[in-house]
Amino acid sequence: MVQNGAVPFLRNIWYVAAWSHELGAGQPLAVKIIGEPLALYRRTDGAVVAFEDRCPHRQAPLSLGRVEGDALRCMYHGLKFAPDGACLEMPGTSAIPPRTQVRVYPALERASWIWVWLGDPRRADPARIPATIALDDPEWLMRAGGLDYAADWQLVNDNLCDLSHLDFVHERTLGASTGASWSAEQPKVTPSDDGLLFERWFLDHALVGSRAGRVDTWNSYRYLLPGTFLMSTQSFPVGTAQASGFGAPAAKPIYRRIDQQAVTPIGERRTRYLYASGVERAGASEKFAEGVFRVVNESFAEDRRIIEAQQAIWDQTPAEHERAFLPQDKAPALFRRMVAARLADERT
Amino acid sequence: MVQNGAVPFLRNIWYVAAWSHELGAGQPLAVKIIGEPLALYRRTDGAVVAFEDRCPHRQAPLSLGRVEGDALRCMYHGLKFAPDGACLEMPGTSAIPPRTQVRVYPALERASWIWVWLGDPRRADPARIPATIALDDPEWLMRAGGLDYAADWQLVNDNLCDLSHLDFVHERTLGASTGASWSAEQPKVTPSDDGLLFERWFLDHALVGSRAGRVDTWNSYRYLLPGTFLMSTQSFPVGTAQASGFGAPAAKPIYRRIDQQAVTPIGERRTRYLYASGVERAGASEKFAEGVFRVVNESFAEDRRIIEAQQAIWDQTPAEHERAFLPQDKAPALFRRMVAARLADERT
Amino acid sequence: MVQNGAVPFLRNIWYVAAWSHELGAGQPLAVKIIGEPLALYRRTDGAVVAFEDRCPHRQAPLSLGRVEGDALRCMYHGLKFAPDGACLEMPGTSAIPPRTQVRVYPALERASWIWVWLGDPRRADPARIPATIALDDPEWLMRAGGLDYAADWQLVNDNLCDLSHLDFVHERTLGASTGASWSAEQPKVTPSDDGLLFERWFLDHALVGSRAGRVDTWNSYRYLLPGTFLMSTQSFPVGTAQASGFGAPAAKPIYRRIDQQAVTPIGERRTRYLYASGVERAGASEKFAEGVFRVVNESFAEDRRIIEAQQAIWDQTPAEHERAFLPQDKAPALFRRMVAARLADERT
Repeated sequence: MVQNGAVPFLRNIWYVAAWSHELGAGQPLAVKIIGEPLALYRRTDGAVVAFEDRCPHRQAPLSLGRVEGDALRCMYHGLKFAPDGACLEMPGTSAIPPRTQVRVYPALERASWIWVWLGDPRRADPARIPATIALDDPEWLMRAGGLDYAADWQLVNDNLCDLSHLDFVHERTLGASTGASWSAEQPKVTPSDDGLLFERWFLDHALVGSRAGRVDTWNSYRYLLPGTFLMSTQSFPVGTAQASGFGAPAAKPIYRRIDQQAVTPIGERRTRYLYASGVERAGASEKFAEGVFRVVNESFAEDRRIIEAQQAIWDQTPAEHERAFLPQDKAPALFRRMVAARLADERT
Repeated sequence: MVQNGAVPFLRNIWYVAAWSHELGAGQPLAVKIIGEPLALYRRTDGAVVAFEDRCPHRQAPLSLGRVEGDALRCMYHGLKFAPDGACLEMPGTSAIPPRTQVRVYPALERASWIWVWLGDPRRADPARIPATIALDDPEWLMRAGGLDYAADWQLVNDNLCDLSHLDFVHERTLGASTGASWSAEQPKVTPSDDGLLFERWFLDHALVGSRAGRVDTWNSYRYLLPGTFLMSTQSFPVGTAQASGFGAPAAKPIYRRIDQQAVTPIGERRTRYLYASGVERAGASEKFAEGVFRVVNESFAEDRRIIEAQQAIWDQTPAEHERAFLPQDKAPALFRRMVAARLADERT
Repeated sequence: MVQNGAVPFLRNIWYVAAWSHELGAGQPLAVKIIGEPLALYRRTDGAVVAFEDRCPHRQAPLSLGRVEGDALRCMYHGLKFAPDGACLEMPGTSAIPPRTQVRVYPALERASWIWVWLGDPRRADPARIPATIALDDPEWLMRAGGLDYAADWQLVNDNLCDLSHLDFVHERTLGASTGASWSAEQPKVTPSDDGLLFERWFLDHALVGSRAGRVDTWNSYRYLLPGTFLMSTQSFPVGTAQASGFGAPAAKPIYRRIDQQAVTPIGERRTRYLYASGVERAGASEKFAEGVFRVVNESFAEDRRIIEAQQAIWDQTPAEHERAFLPQDKAPALFRRMVAARLADERT
C-alpha cells in the first residue's frame, strides 16, 4: 500500500480560482478546482459568474461557449444560460423545462483574486475571505505570476509551513536574498481557527541588494486554510528587535516587502500556485521590483522541481516506511491536522 | 459512477478501415478497429488482405513485416504467411505445424474505401456495404481527408445525427457556408433497418459562394450503422420546394454537392473519421472544390475540439446527472437505441 | 486475461546500473532498477555509493542532493548522510535519532560498469560479477552507448537468446555486416548455473568491410542472468573450422571483435540497455571502429522498434492465444525457465 489514495478536499471554503486579469470581458475561462470543472465569465457590469463547466444538455463545456450580454451560450447546440443558471434559450423549442439549469457557484473578486466557493452556498460568507493587497495598490510595486504543480496541494502546504527549506532549495535564490539563516532556528508558531501565524526576528544581518547596511528584520506570515500565504517582511536599524522585546515592532521600517500566495488544488496530484510579491513604492524603483520578482520566479521553479520529485517518490513509498520527524515539521503537521479536522467536520 | 465504462462495439458489421490510397502496394498498413490491431496489405493483383496484426510465433506486429508477392513475412523471426493465413515458411524448420496460421478478416475495397468485417466471417455479406461515390468518379470533383478523435465513436454519431450544431459549432464555417439555419427546424427523420434517413428543405436562401442567387435547397442524408454518413445537397430555383410538395424534388438541380463520411471506432475513446466532399464537376472549378473542402477541414477541426472537450467532461459526469432532452436529440437517441439493439443481438 | 500482469524481478543478483562515465564526481545520478529508485554518487576516493533515492525525512529524492566530501546532503531540508547511510546532520536539532538513516545498497565498479545489488546484502558476493573488458582496455577500440526500451526485460532477453532475428530485423545492418546467415542453422547451446553459452561456426563466408577475403568465423557468447551478453567473434582462414573439428579454435584469429551488453529492468515494461562493441586495436583504425559502432546503433534502434511494437501487441494478447514454437525458441525458453526458477527460489 502506498500513500495518498483518493485525495479528499475541503468544500466549505473559499478557493482562489484565478488572477483577476486572467478573466477578460467576453471570454470565458476554464478552471478546475478540487476536481470540479468550472467556467468563469464576466457579466456586463464586470461581476464574475462561476458556472459548472458542463452544459446540462450534452455535457459540452460551457467554457468553450460565448458570452452574450450577461448570459453564456453553449456553443455546441446553442442553449443559453442566465447568470443565475436558468436556461434562457433552447434552440428548436420554446418549452424550456424549468429544471434545465446550470449549477452556479458563489464567486467574487477581491483585490485581484477571483474567489470561488464549491461547498454549501448558504455558508459562503464573503467575510471569511482574508484581506489582501491588490496588484494595483498605490502603496506597493507588485508583480504577479503562477504555475501548476504536478503534486498534491498538501505537499505545497508542507513546503510553505516550513521555510527552513530556503537554506537548501533556495540556497542561491530566495534564501541568499534574505541574508539570513532560515533553518538554524524556528519561528514562533501560533495557531488560530483559520490557520497558523509564523513570527520571527532575523538579527543584525545584511540586507541584500540594498544600501541600508545591516538590519534587524521582522518576518511574519499567516498560512490560512485552504492554502493562503500572506507574508510581511520589515527591516529596521540593528537593535530594533531587542528594543521591541523581540516581539512585533512598532517602529517605522526602513524596508518593507510583502508576499501573497494562493495554493489551490486542481485535483489529485495537481495544484495551482498563484503568487505575487511587492516592495513599498516609496523609495523603490520598477527595476528593483523586477529584480525581487526574478528571484521569486527562480525560487518557485526550484520548489516545483523538488516537490514534484518528492511526489514521485512519495507515490512509491509504502505507508509504513520509516519517517524522521524534525522540530520544523511541527507546523506542517499542525496544518495537516487542521485540514484533517475540517475534512472530518465536512463528512458529518 | 461515471458514464462509459468498458465500451462495447458491434462486430457483425462492415467497418471502413482506411482510404484506398492509404494502402500502397508492397507496404503493409497498421490500423486498429474496435480495439483489434490489423495489418492490411495488397496482393499482387491489388486485392486487400486483412490480417490480425500479430504473428502467431512471438506476437510481433505483421504490419512491420514485408510483402513478398501475395504473402506477408514477419520481420522479427521470418515466418511467412499466405493471404489465407497459412504459414508458408518457418525459418529453421521445414516441419510447419498446420495450426500455425494468422487470422484473416474479410476485407474488400469499394469506391475508395477499404472495408473490413471483424465478426462471424460466414455473415460477411458484401451486399451490405452501402453504395458510395469513388474519389475518382468522373462526375464529381472530390477531396478526401481524415482525423482521429480522442472520443467515443457514439459521441461522433450523436454529432452527425443532429446537425443543429452547424449554427453554433460551425457558425462561421460550414454553418455559414450553407446560408441557412440548421437549428430553427428539424429535418424529417425516417428510420430503417440500417440507420436513419434525414430530409429537409431550406427555402429561399442565398447560395453562398455562387452566382446562382437565391435558391431552395433539398438536403438529405442517410446515417447508417455503424457510422456512415452519406449526404446529398441539391439547390433549385426558388419555388421548387413548393412545386415538389415539400417532398423529394424531381427537377434537375442548379447545384449539387455530396458529403461522405465514415466513423470507425479505433477503441475506447478513440475514433477514426474519414471524410470526403464533392461538387459536380460540370460547371465547377478545382479552385471552387478546394474552397469547399477548406471549409470542411476547418469545420471538422471545430467538431473535434468540442467533442473531445465534451468527452473529457462526460468522463467526469455521474450517470445520474440531470440531462436536458431537446427535440433534436430524438435522432441521436434513436440511433443509439439501434446500436444498443444490435449489441444486444450480438450477445445472444 | 492478458499476459504480463505484475512483473516479478530477481533481487539477489548484480545489476548493471550505469556506465562508469555516467557518474561524475560531485554529481549524484538517479537510476531506477526493478522499480527501486536509487541515488548513486562517488565518495572522494571515487568509490560508488548507492543510496535508496528517498530521504527518510520527507521522501525527497537524494539524487537532487549535494555531494559534500564523502557524504550526500538532501537539498530539501538539509539532512546529511554518510556513505554508510547514517544521518550526520539534521538542521534545527543536534539530537539525531539513530534510526534516521538511508538505505544503502552494495555497489561497485568493474571495467566501466557500475553494478548494484538490491537483494540480501549478505549474499552480495563480488565474485559473482562476470569478467568484462573495460572501455579503455589497451587491447581494444571500444565504443559504448545505451537506450531505454518501453518493454519488459524478458522480451529483450528473448531477443538476445535467439540471434536468428539478425536475418530479418537487421537484414541490412548487423545481419548484413556479418556476411552469414543466422537463421538457417542454430548454434550449440550449453546451459550453466548462470546462463547459457552459445557457440557456432560460420563457414567460408565473406568478411564484410575487410580485405581479408573469405573466412571461417567462430562466434560464441554467454548470456548470463539477469541479462548480460558477452560475445566474442573471431575470423580465421577458411578451413580452420574443419581443422578445429568444428569446436572452439586454438589458432590466432585474423580478425577479432567483442560485444558486451547489459539488460537491466527499470520497472514494469521499462528496460535499460547498455552496450559496447570493440575491435582489436592492432590493425584497426578509429574510423573502422566508428563504422562498426554505427551499424550497432542502427541495429539496436531496429530492435527497439520491433520489441516495443511486440510489447504493445503482447499486452493485448489473451494468455490462451495460440503460439508457434520454433527450434530457435529453445534457448529463450530455457533462459525464461532459469529466471522463473530463480524467482521461485527467492520467494522461498
